[in-house]
Amino acid sequence: MELRDRAKQMKLDSMELAAKTSEERNNALALIADALIAAKEEILAANEADMKAAEEAGIAAPVLKRLRFDENKLNDVVSGVRELIKLKDPLGKVELKRELDEGLILVRETCPIGVIGVIFESRPDAMVQISTLCLKSGNCAILKGGSEALNTNRILFETIHNTAVKAGMPDNCMLQIEAREDIGKLLECHEAIDLLIPRGSNAFVQYIMNNTKIPVMGHADGICHIYVDKAADINKAVKIVTDAKTQYVAVCNAVENLLVHKDIAADFMPALKAEFDKRNVELRGTEAIRNIVDCVPATDEDFETEYLDYILSAKTVNDINEAITHINKYGSHHTDAIMTEDAETAAYFMQLVDSAGVYQNCSTRFADGFRYGFGAEVGVSTGKLHARGPVGLDGLVTYKYKMFGNGHIVADYASGVRKFNFKDLM
Amino acid sequence: MELRDRAKQMKLDSMELAAKTSEERNNALALIADALIAAKEEILAANEADMKAAEEAGIAAPVLKRLRFDENKLNDVVSGVRELIKLKDPLGKVELKRELDEGLILVRETCPIGVIGVIFESRPDAMVQISTLCLKSGNCAILKGGSEALNTNRILFETIHNTAVKAGMPDNCMLQIEAREDIGKLLECHEAIDLLIPRGSNAFVQYIMNNTKIPVMGHADGICHIYVDKAADINKAVKIVTDAKTQYVAVCNAVENLLVHKDIAADFMPALKAEFDKRNVELRGTEAIRNIVDCVPATDEDFETEYLDYILSAKTVNDINEAITHINKYGSHHTDAIMTEDAETAAYFMQLVDSAGVYQNCSTRFADGFRYGFGAEVGVSTGKLHARGPVGLDGLVTYKYKMFGNGHIVADYASGVRKFNFKDLM
Repeated sequence: MELRDRAKQMKLDSMELAAKTSEERNNALALIADALIAAKEEILAANEADMKAAEEAGIAAPVLKRLRFDENKLNDVVSGVRELIKLKDPLGKVELKRELDEGLILVRETCPIGVIGVIFESRPDAMVQISTLCLKSGNCAILKGGSEALNTNRILFETIHNTAVKAGMPDNCMLQIEAREDIGKLLECHEAIDLLIPRGSNAFVQYIMNNTKIPVMGHADGICHIYVDKAADINKAVKIVTDAKTQYVAVCNAVENLLVHKDIAADFMPALKAEFDKRNVELRGTEAIRNIVDCVPATDEDFETEYLDYILSAKTVNDINEAITHINKYGSHHTDAIMTEDAETAAYFMQLVDSAGVYQNCSTRFADGFRYGFGAEVGVSTGKLHARGPVGLDGLVTYKYKMFGNGHIVADYASGVRKFNFKDLM
Repeated sequence: MELRDRAKQMKLDSMELAAKTSEERNNALALIADALIAAKEEILAANEADMKAAEEAGIAAPVLKRLRFDENKLNDVVSGVRELIKLKDPLGKVELKRELDEGLILVRETCPIGVIGVIFESRPDAMVQISTLCLKSGNCAILKGGSEALNTNRILFETIHNTAVKAGMPDNCMLQIEAREDIGKLLECHEAIDLLIPRGSNAFVQYIMNNTKIPVMGHADGICHIYVDKAADINKAVKIVTDAKTQYVAVCNAVENLLVHKDIAADFMPALKAEFDKRNVELRGTEAIRNIVDCVPATDEDFETEYLDYILSAKTVNDINEAITHINKYGSHHTDAIMTEDAETAAYFMQLVDSAGVYQNCSTRFADGFRYGFGAEVGVSTGKLHARGPVGLDGLVTYKYKMFGNGHIVADYASGVRKFNFKDLM
């Protein structure tokens, strides 16, 4: 069957999955965790084959590292599945209950989105995490993993899918696609797929966003800023900028651009430079910065670049408004922080910066679903609709309105025979 | 300045509007209400000119009716603005407040979406309603009204915009576009516009959805169903189907397709037919229906058609599952109802039908923001992301995460020096 037809059938079957109870979905997840452990030998052997093929193909070391799926990683993802079971069911949550008139009750209740397409990177962990997140939230999933992980993903998917079906989930609850050319077909399934979540490189996510009518959740860029206000505590600011830059550079919530108030730059920059030199971080500065510390000249392009590396570009600003305007213009609306001891200044910054996360005196690296206490994370959204910032299970649900009447008709309200008498019941 | 550049500037200025307090926005709305009344003579004269031009151009009577903007209509929209002021501020609502660790506080707070583009029909009332809804929710608006209402819309926009600016709103809080070719330019402003709301014909909304990268909120089709279960109360069902079909035919929440359980069809259909005959409603039926009552044969195409007219197509089904499958396949996921006295059957239907509204024993015509008690309505969304069903002010907001720290860095949590200690503060 063609992918498009399979996706359409999945859309129809998605309501069957949506109707499964919390107990049924959690029971399937528990059996999946056990089945993954039971399939350990096969999974590790499949990963050995993928690793061997990747090494022979001369794949880069960082990709090889992400591709490796050993016993520790298996145990980690299985623990993840067991934690997921404990998370509160995101479905069936009553968000509104209102009597519109005598005997006419309106209820707004959360339900799954339907069919979600996820395209992810070469980490086999992602296959387990994403398929189980979708199952927990009652969504059907079409999964496309990185081609380097073909063998590992295949056995992981088979184990998860077979177990889910044995546990009573519909056969069409999840579908794996493997061929790269199927991505193009997937992007055309706007009648059947409700949401696409692409994970991977900036260019890849951008490509997906530009080539489908399906709503896309995710982020392409992650150009995060820290603004060091004139009322900053210099020690705190040095510590935080260093953490945001160096704690893990290859991630979207690492800081890329630094804006420093001109009145504090002469004190702050040398302190930061000293810390950066210890850690081999390259500082790129505008002329005003280079008048204070010795560093590489920063070009305009630097301020539009997501380095994902031990590089930080810095410029001075005359006041907080210049900082805010710069962030709103050059940033990616992901996460931006102000370093200041002045609460009013912080409030002003947080109000006017147009980003999913606006922080005072803490590292941009906190922008993450686990650190926000969401348990599982789907990804980070820099879009403003549906879900913004780190997205947990709540981002995988929508709602429907249920209305219970007893013969109620609109004509009676139009004619004035009856009147609405709104009364919230919760 | 080109529309694209103006939209980009509006995006930057949108944060200034977002920072206005509830009092400031409501004050602007109060002044706008007064200014509209004060500009009465000019507004009515402009509408006279539009009406005259439309009549000369031979515009159809229903369009002329919608185009007319007399003193009564002006008073109605001004009352609407005054009601809007009383509605609770959708901004600054704290949705989550959590201590992640000592001194590290995460707050999730509602805020405006940013820049919203609205393309609407020839009713001049829409200009007032939409511009004030956007202002109330702190969003900048780019407004394109129907070309027939050019003069009326121009004076309405000028009055509203000038008053808003005098009341302290940024000059770029709203922008009117008039030329039809500007719609094409608008659709290309995906860097600046966060959301598009097209209102109008099915074909027009579909065109917008297919020709922009900007997220679109709205509905193209409105193919609503009523399923008459074998456990239906026939009197109630006749009354409700009649209301849903005839109370106002030219709307998206009118019923278009009727599904009748085979066991009740012989009793139900004649009763419905008698009522329809009184009201000159054309019934189109499948063979099984025509074996019971005399009516026009229904084709497959009928079940995919939004009539917006005094026509209803009907078919029998063998059981509730056939009804559900039909609705999920042919419906537009708008609003679908079951007529049944059996609560379990109703629950099953409501669970499995994939629509924004699922009703028991009441008319589909209730699917409307005012009737849901939302006060103002932006429109009805058949999309599943962000907002679904009738959309009130809440559909015009998003949220941001604010985090307050005191030097907190991620390295301390990664190394285990500190541990997260999630505690909800609300």
